[in-house]
Amino acid sequence: MPQPSTRNRLLEHAEAVFRQKGFDGASVQDITRAADVPKGSFYNHFDSKQDLAVEIVHRYAGGTDLSPLGEGDSPVARLRAYLLGELERTEITGVEFGCLLGTFASDSATAGDRVREAVGEALASRSASLARTIEEGQATGAITARRPAGVLATFLVDALEGAILRAKTAVGPSTAAEEIDIALDALRP
Amino acid sequence: MPQPSTRNRLLEHAEAVFRQKGFDGASVQDITRAADVPKGSFYNHFDSKQDLAVEIVHRYAGGTDLSPLGEGDSPVARLRAYLLGELERTEITGVEFGCLLGTFASDSATAGDRVREAVGEALASRSASLARTIEEGQATGAITARRPAGVLATFLVDALEGAILRAKTAVGPSTAAEEIDIALDALRP
Repeated sequence: MPQPSTRNRLLEHAEAVFRQKGFDGASVQDITRAADVPKGSFYNHFDSKQDLAVEIVHRYAGGTDLSPLGEGDSPVARLRAYLLGELERTEITGVEFGCLLGTFASDSATAGDRVREAVGEALASRSASLARTIEEGQATGAITARRPAGVLATFLVDALEGAILRAKTAVGPSTAAEEIDIALDALRP
Repeated sequence: MPQPSTRNRLLEHAEAVFRQKGFDGASVQDITRAADVPKGSFYNHFDSKQDLAVEIVHRYAGGTDLSPLGEGDSPVARLRAYLLGELERTEITGVEFGCLLGTFASDSATAGDRVREAVGEALASRSASLARTIEEGQATGAITARRPAGVLATFLVDALEGAILRAKTAVGPSTAAEEIDIALDALRP
């Protein structure tokens, strides 16, 4: 079986390093060390740490499981299942390290325009996916039609990110799952 | 008039540097340069960057304007005024730099336990302030009593932090003010 290429090794390991240390806290050496490749090889594959981070954002966004949004339950139940799935994703990779998109969003001011825009677009794409399910609920009257589906979707994604952000401080037990239920209460007609 | 002491100069300038660069992105040299003091003087006043960051969190939390929570309007109107005030605070200091507590919460994994705990306690204290106003609303029936005031308060603070977090990516116009209104919808009986 062929060995994964150096480029793939860097991509495989950089996500965890970025999540654990943030954009500024993660050095190129941290990443090459985690990937077990020579430090000098990094720049054969990526122009910069920023260049790698943009690819990591695309991979992370592409790895989002949207399937809970498409199944047969009520729209609100599907939204809940999706949001709890995202929460679980952060639990699996370590609550204390939060969500990669949230971490990079927080690092936007220093990570540079390309990373900032990639994160913003990934969050916007996530909101757009939720908006379609919200529109279904609005059509049946299960979800309030007083506000545009897109804004409600943005609110849900941000409420989740905010709950995950607090969980990183690990002061007191996480109430993130209950906060998702409260956020969904805001969608009542 | 006496000159502000070196220690006070560091405290005055560190907040902006931390907000703009995050805990990891801000070096001691960035801070001493912003404060216009010799780099070597830093360690006469603080044991570490972490030590300074803990003081900055306390100052930031102490600078929170809780007065909107205590005035004569309905509890929900007071909560809205408080949350819009916090949003405005980030607008004045630069939307792209977000909220200092949110930025440090995101940096929790690398900033060290003392910073992490100081931020967690500042967020918990903010929630406790909101919870008292929520309890008033629950007593009159204006706010749902199906959930504990403390959890509703935590949800509101986190929804605000999540909306501010997205605004840092500056992709599309900020919907943060509308998200605050949606979050308050969740408190309906």
